[in-house]
Amino acid sequence: MTTEFAKLPKPPYYAVIFSSQRREGDDGYGATSDRMVELARQQPGFLGVESTRGDDGFGITVAYWESEEAIKAWRLQTEHAAARERGRADWYRHFEIRVARVERAYGWDQAGGHTRG
Amino acid sequence: MTTEFAKLPKPPYYAVIFSSQRREGDDGYGATSDRMVELARQQPGFLGVESTRGDDGFGITVAYWESEEAIKAWRLQTEHAAARERGRADWYRHFEIRVARVERAYGWDQAGGHTRG
Repeated sequence: MTTEFAKLPKPPYYAVIFSSQRREGDDGYGATSDRMVELARQQPGFLGVESTRGDDGFGITVAYWESEEAIKAWRLQTEHAAARERGRADWYRHFEIRVARVERAYGWDQAGGHTRG
Repeated sequence: MTTEFAKLPKPPYYAVIFSSQRREGDDGYGATSDRMVELARQQPGFLGVESTRGDDGFGITVAYWESEEAIKAWRLQTEHAAARERGRADWYRHFEIRVARVERAYGWDQAGGHTRG
């Protein structure tokens, strides 16, 4: 799973904040996780994703979308739905999902100072 | 920094999504990070926080607040403002902040199945 910063357009847009606690072991998780990012990038309305996980297995992934409609379409994507089933069966102990509308954004870089989205 | 799941009320509420790339070394970061969570918990309108960082130094912290006013008040908190200065001077290579209004939320637990916020 990549950990680069997402390059996003100016708000408004939508964020799906997925926080999760993994079980022990990989069990096919890594490959599916990479595949889901690859598939999401092909979805209409996908804007970007940022993701990280600590050694304790607690992770946060935030996927950014143009609209609620784009989020719903991704939910219905067949391979993604199957991966969610595996997530509940095999990979996660607990997860929380919050869907939010991004209203403002800004960034900062050591080299270039502040930027505003 | 704790990595527990935040227990949140029903939406709507606000999320401040902070993604960051750390520089090498601790340089006082860990202690200040813990202190900021301790201080945030004392702020009016603070609802919870979830945070994690990978071995590559890329991290995501999501803080949840009752309102935009609560977020603005936290921005003006003196010790927090000083910590942000140190962040730019010493700790971060790059960061992005997105402020979003959470509209719906749900969770899942291995033991108990789905819950809805």
